[in-house]
Order: sequence, then C-alpha cells, then structure tokens
Amino acid sequence: MKFKGHHIISMTSFSRDMIDSILETAERMEPIALGKQRSGLLTGKILAVLFFEPSTRTRMSFETAMYRLGGDVLNLGSVDASSIAKGETLADTIRVVDGYADAIVLRHPKEGAAQLAAEFSTIPILNAGDGAGHHPTQTLLDLYTIKRESRLEGLKIALAGDLKYGRTVHSLCYALSLYGAEITLISPRELRMPEEIISDLEKRGAKVTETDTIEDAINEVDVIYMTRIQKERFPDPAEYEKVANRLKITPELLTDARPELRIMHPLPRVNEIDTGVDETQHACYFKQAFYGVPVRMALLALVLGAIEI
Amino acid sequence: MKFKGHHIISMTSFSRDMIDSILETAERMEPIALGKQRSGLLTGKILAVLFFEPSTRTRMSFETAMYRLGGDVLNLGSVDASSIAKGETLADTIRVVDGYADAIVLRHPKEGAAQLAAEFSTIPILNAGDGAGHHPTQTLLDLYTIKRESRLEGLKIALAGDLKYGRTVHSLCYALSLYGAEITLISPRELRMPEEIISDLEKRGAKVTETDTIEDAINEVDVIYMTRIQKERFPDPAEYEKVANRLKITPELLTDARPELRIMHPLPRVNEIDTGVDETQHACYFKQAFYGVPVRMALLALVLGAIEI
Amino acid sequence: MKFKGHHIISMTSFSRDMIDSILETAERMEPIALGKQRSGLLTGKILAVLFFEPSTRTRMSFETAMYRLGGDVLNLGSVDASSIAKGETLADTIRVVDGYADAIVLRHPKEGAAQLAAEFSTIPILNAGDGAGHHPTQTLLDLYTIKRESRLEGLKIALAGDLKYGRTVHSLCYALSLYGAEITLISPRELRMPEEIISDLEKRGAKVTETDTIEDAINEVDVIYMTRIQKERFPDPAEYEKVANRLKITPELLTDARPELRIMHPLPRVNEIDTGVDETQHACYFKQAFYGVPVRMALLALVLGAIEI
Repeated sequence: MKFKGHHIISMTSFSRDMIDSILETAERMEPIALGKQRSGLLTGKILAVLFFEPSTRTRMSFETAMYRLGGDVLNLGSVDASSIAKGETLADTIRVVDGYADAIVLRHPKEGAAQLAAEFSTIPILNAGDGAGHHPTQTLLDLYTIKRESRLEGLKIALAGDLKYGRTVHSLCYALSLYGAEITLISPRELRMPEEIISDLEKRGAKVTETDTIEDAINEVDVIYMTRIQKERFPDPAEYEKVANRLKITPELLTDARPELRIMHPLPRVNEIDTGVDETQHACYFKQAFYGVPVRMALLALVLGAIEI
Repeated sequence: MKFKGHHIISMTSFSRDMIDSILETAERMEPIALGKQRSGLLTGKILAVLFFEPSTRTRMSFETAMYRLGGDVLNLGSVDASSIAKGETLADTIRVVDGYADAIVLRHPKEGAAQLAAEFSTIPILNAGDGAGHHPTQTLLDLYTIKRESRLEGLKIALAGDLKYGRTVHSLCYALSLYGAEITLISPRELRMPEEIISDLEKRGAKVTETDTIEDAINEVDVIYMTRIQKERFPDPAEYEKVANRLKITPELLTDARPELRIMHPLPRVNEIDTGVDETQHACYFKQAFYGVPVRMALLALVLGAIEI
Repeated sequence: MKFKGHHIISMTSFSRDMIDSILETAERMEPIALGKQRSGLLTGKILAVLFFEPSTRTRMSFETAMYRLGGDVLNLGSVDASSIAKGETLADTIRVVDGYADAIVLRHPKEGAAQLAAEFSTIPILNAGDGAGHHPTQTLLDLYTIKRESRLEGLKIALAGDLKYGRTVHSLCYALSLYGAEITLISPRELRMPEEIISDLEKRGAKVTETDTIEDAINEVDVIYMTRIQKERFPDPAEYEKVANRLKITPELLTDARPELRIMHPLPRVNEIDTGVDETQHACYFKQAFYGVPVRMALLALVLGAIEI
C-alpha cells in the first residue's frame, strides 16, 4: 500500500484495508506518542500548519505528532495577520507554502478547500476539516479509539446529539458501515440524520435504528458517541434547553451500565456529559483526544514516506 | 530531593534547602542558557505553553529554556481563538493537553488556576502566574539574580513601588525572609505593603523598615528592587504623577552610590528607571530577564526527571 | 570575509563581492532547503522572530530556514498581546530578547527600527523590513532568483508597477546597478521612480529607460519584475482601475515572448499577473518565494558563524 506523497482529503478514498493499516500503524506509534520511546523518524521534516479557522485540539495534536517524531512545525498564524488579509487566494498561499515545508495540514471554513489545495500542492495535504466537508483524521481517531477501548468487529454504537449537521458523525458512520456496525441514532426531531445518509449506510451493510432518548440505548450498546448541540440551531431557547437536557449523560443514567460501555465525545463538551461521569470507567473522551496523536503520527509518517505498510 | 513529576505552584512549598538546590542547578545551566554549551537533556520532550493572558517575557524565557535543553514547545495560542472561547472549562483543557505534552506551563488571570490545573493533570504543572496568586518562577529568578549579582546571605534590600498589590514583591519578601534579609519598603502611603505581610515577614526572621523615598535607602542597601506603579491605582492623575516622580531612579540619584549597589526590575519598566541608568554598573534588570532562562531550565529538567539533585 | 556577529540592516553595506559570496552560499544551501539533504549546522541555536507587523512569507521563510538547519525559533507573537502593549520601548524589548536567543529577525513598521535595534543588541539583527526603510533579505532573494533563473551579468530587466513607493524595487535596482544592468522602468505617471534614484542608478553604472506600457518591454528583456499597485495611492478609483489594467500581465501578452523571459513578483499578487500565466515557463514568482529559504539559510549560517566564506 503506497501512502507516500498522497493527500489525505476524505474518508471516501479509504478502503477498509487501508483504514486497518493506518490503525495498526497508529498502534505502533503509541509508545512514542506517550513519550515512553523516542523517535527521529521525521527529523529534518517540516509540517506547515495552515488553520484558516481555529481548532485548538486538532492543531495541537498534529503539532505534537510532528514533534514526537522529531519534526518541526511551521505555523501560518492567524489569518487576520497574514497575507490572506491582503487578498491572496488559497491557491497562491498553498503554492508559496509548498516551498517552505514537506507537508501541509489545512483547516478551512469552506467545503472543498482541501481538494482545491491538493490541486496546487506538490507536497501532501492533510485535511484537518473543511467546513461542511470532510475531517478524515477525526474519523480515523474515532475509529482508533473504538478499536483500542472497545471493538470494531460486531460493534453496537449509539450516536447522540446533532446528527443533522454533524460532519463528524456522518463520516464516522460511513466508516463504521465498512465494519458492519449496528448503529443507533439518538437525536431531537429537528436534528435527525438526513434520510439519504441513513439509506446509504444501510446499503453499505450497517444496521440503523433511530430513537430520541439515551436511556433505552445505554444498556444495548458498546459505545455511546455524544456530540454537542448548538444553541443557534433552535429558534426558541426553551426548546434548546428541553432537548439539551434530554440528550445529556449523567452518572445516574449509568448506574446499571455494563462495565464495558464506553462514552466518547469529540470535545469540547459543554453540558452533554456531566463532569460526574469523568471518573467512571465509561469515560474515554480524554483518551480519545490523546489518540489523535498516534493516529496523526501514523498519517504523517506514511505520507512523508518515513514508513511503508 | 525529588522534583520529578512535581508541580511548581507556589513558593510556599519550598524550603530554603530546596531553593538552594534549584539555584545551584540553575547555575550549572548557565553555559547552556548562554548558548556556549549544547544540551540534549530534554530532547523528545514537549512543553505545552498555556497562556490565558499574555506575558511575553515569561513565555519566551520558558520557551528558550526548553529549546536550550533540546525540547519542543507546543503553544495553545491565543485564547480567543481556542476552544476555550467555545466554553471549555480549564479542567477539560488541562486533561486534553495532558495527552499532548510532558509538562504544562500555565499563566492564568484567576487566582488558584494553577492549583486547579494540578488537580486534573498527570504531568507537571508550572505556574507562570495566576492572577493575584503565585508566580514562583519569577521569585526564583529574582533570588537567582540576587545570588549571582549580589549576595543572598546577609542581604540588605529595598523594594520600591506598588507594595500593596505587587504579587512579585510579596513572594520575593517571603523567600528572602528564609535568608534573614534586612528589607526596606519604599512606597507611597496608598500602596504600602499590607500589615499582615510585614508581621509575617518579621516572624520568619526578616528585619523590616518602611520609608517613602528612595534617597535615604540608596546608600544603605545591596539591592534596590523597583516595580511599576499602575496609573489605574490612583483616582487622581495628578497624585499618580507626584508619586511616580518620587519613586524613580535617575543617574543623579546614583552619583554617590557604592559600586556594589544593584538595581533590579521585573520589567517592563515605564518611567521608574531612567534609561540613563542602563549603562551604569548598577543596572541588572536585563541580566535579571536573562536569568529567567537558566532558572526555568533547572525547573524543567527537574520536574521532567532529566536531572536529580 | 567575516559575517559572524554582524547585523544585516541594509543592502548599502554590501559590496558586489559580498553579495556574490552570499548568493554562492545560498546555492550550496539549496539541497537542504528542498529537504533533500539534512543539516545540523544550527542545532542548538535559537532565532527570535520579532514581527511588529505581519509579513507571512518573510516570517515563514525565515522560520523554515532555521528549521532546515536544525535550529529553533522563538516567536514574540502578536504585538497587541505582548509587553509592547504595556509601553515597552523597542530598545528594552531588544535587550530582553538578546538574552533569549542567538539572533533576532526584526520586522517593524518604522524606518530605522533595525538600525536602532542593532545599537542595543549583542546578537546579530536581521532586518526583515522596517517601514519605508530597508528589506535586504528580499533584495538578496530577488538577486538569487535572477541568478538562478536568468543571469546577473548583462541582465536586461523591466520593473513594473508602483516604482515611487516600492522599497523593494528601489533596493533591487541599486543592487543591480552593481552588475551594470539595463533597467526599464514601467509605471503610471503618478507612481514613477523618483528622479534622484534614477540619477543615482545611472551614476553607479546602470542604464535606465522609462516607459508606461508593458507591451514594448516584454520582448526586450530577460526578466520582468511586477509589483502590486495599491488602490489607496489613487484618489479616484476609476483612475486606479485604468492603471491597474494597463500594468497587468496576461497569457495573451506573452504569445510571442522568448522562452527565456522570466516573470517575478514579490507576492502577494492581486491582479497584476493573470493566473493563466502561472503554468507558463515564464512564471517564476513561486520559485522566487522558495528561494527566500536558501538565501535566509545562508545569512543565518553566516551571521551565526556556522560557516565562513
């Protein structure tokens, strides 16, 4: 399998075999990610970090990934303060940065930005989220978390929150359909997953059920994946409050949960998960954030040709 | 003495022996801090820099300390642009960054933030100032400056400026009381050091005198420690001007000063020290800024277990 | 020739021999700049990046230059967030940073800032542009681009756009006069190159012609150097549009151009060069941006004494 020089734009280009290879590579990276083992795999290499909108966790874990492998990080900095403010196009920015680095990680508010960047870049582009578009490294770290903390084979998973606009959950569901997962969708009526995505998932082999409360699902699944509901989605604040309260995990809700149940969240959370849950064996959202490091290390090492699989 | 894995939250946890050990370690770091000698003591280690308010000197000297020892620096960046703006708690931010780094240096506007962070962190927290709370690395670099440029034993020191709100001077005085210093306090009536601190200092072995002009003290002491007086403390601008003019060091004031007299300032200065003083043998505030580097190198190497004392 | 410890403030201090030596050193740096070869020439060294106004390309290429040679980068960060906002003078900032780094690259909106900084610094200052003053590393990378993509000896070059305020083109013309270049100046009447500069150039050995359209020059020269015209220079927007349209390079204009013709631009471009030109053999503005890396590597290695020429 050849990753060297390839762009990482979207999950749709990955077969299950490719995903498995990436996750296995990430697993080998874990001791280095934890700082228990040192690596000079990317010494002398430079990762350019182009974040046209902030995303602290994603940026920091990419930077950590690069440092753990001995590489350096070149930051575009805030966009207001850059030549983009002088009217430079994304294509021009990419062609300039192309000469300064060995790979580019790009975050952009506009869908399709990563694909556009790839067309103008001679070095690998890693898409760190482009608006309503894709965010493949988030999906890969979610899969990796499930693999490490639960199981990918025969997985029963519930996804709760905003399933209509949530790019993260759509992409994760597609990927999970490759593994034949049983998926329970939990959302308020206003934020249901779009019909065409559900039917797509079923065609690809996933089993999909819908419900609107967490209570029923909690004892049936291996993993609950929580997401944030944005207040702005609701014209009526009272309606938001009602929904937000119903889609919230509390320690009480977990009284009878099986020990194996795992709770995930892409973070930042606001109120979807009570802090009382943090100390239970079910919580794995902070581990999930950490798992972004070995996964991004694997991707960087692969596209830069430092390892082959 | 075991520092590995320990948090550095406040000076109150340090005995005189511990302080002496840190200062001796800093002294060994000086050739590396000056770039005269290379070190790979922290190669492969990552320091996360979480500054919830700007403090350029402190941040830069921590970063330099890490680089001089071969380590890397991961920056949270500006808080407006981070997930904190999305409502993430400090506890959550810390638990996420915990997975990205080997130590965290935290600057925060709220008193107690560093202690809170320490409760949620599995990696060492270094407090780089938490509001009206503590700023132990500033105190240690002040002590180090006194040790290198004057003497800690039998020291006569005058502190001038805002002694009421100045966290820096309170903490330094407590530390100096461990060495039995003779302390002269010079401040306008409105900004006198709080009574309870003075009586505390005396209980701990310091000898404390108060005055309100610099002239008298200047020929009596080994060190004058100047601080900035903030205009905002005075309801009447005219009153501020009067006070600021009285608590100012000029070359004229130093005409008869003993050659050994040293002038310190945590910087940035505004008008408290006339630039004409800079070229005199008394000025040591820029050296003081530099001394932050070996002191922070010592602390980083100690809490990360790279050296033991 | 001794560069170690020297400041790089302006082109006026460089003889032709010195320029040639720097360009030759840059050429040796190219394989490392391209990431094809690794170097530890500046391992353990720290470059402080003090940008008092943004300049993304210049900053990033300096940082890349430092990383490619194994060094580290310490960033002052945005000025609003720094102690400068508390009223610190440039002289004080420089004297503090002097203790944190091995060299300083300074960008400042005020003319003369770099010279001032040099007076207070014990480590080399590299001027990355000081307002209407100098920007020597831009000139050196322009010369390097001409050397690599065309020829410095017997060069015929046209410079187009804002020749009145353009610091970049003034400095480049002075340097080219050392090589006896034939210079064609193309600008609207309002933005003509100042008479005294033209007569200076002629005294130094350059042959200077003026015109106001690109068409005539395009088949006569080896290199066209385009620059951006700022809308703000024109009281009447209609006048700006007229001028901007006349000073624009399009693929049509290049139909009969000699294959050797090279088009340069300091970037960012807005409309001066149609994107249709990018894929032609004439375009070399993105390469020009890249060439900033080996040139800055050469300068850093020289002033830090890592190599001698």
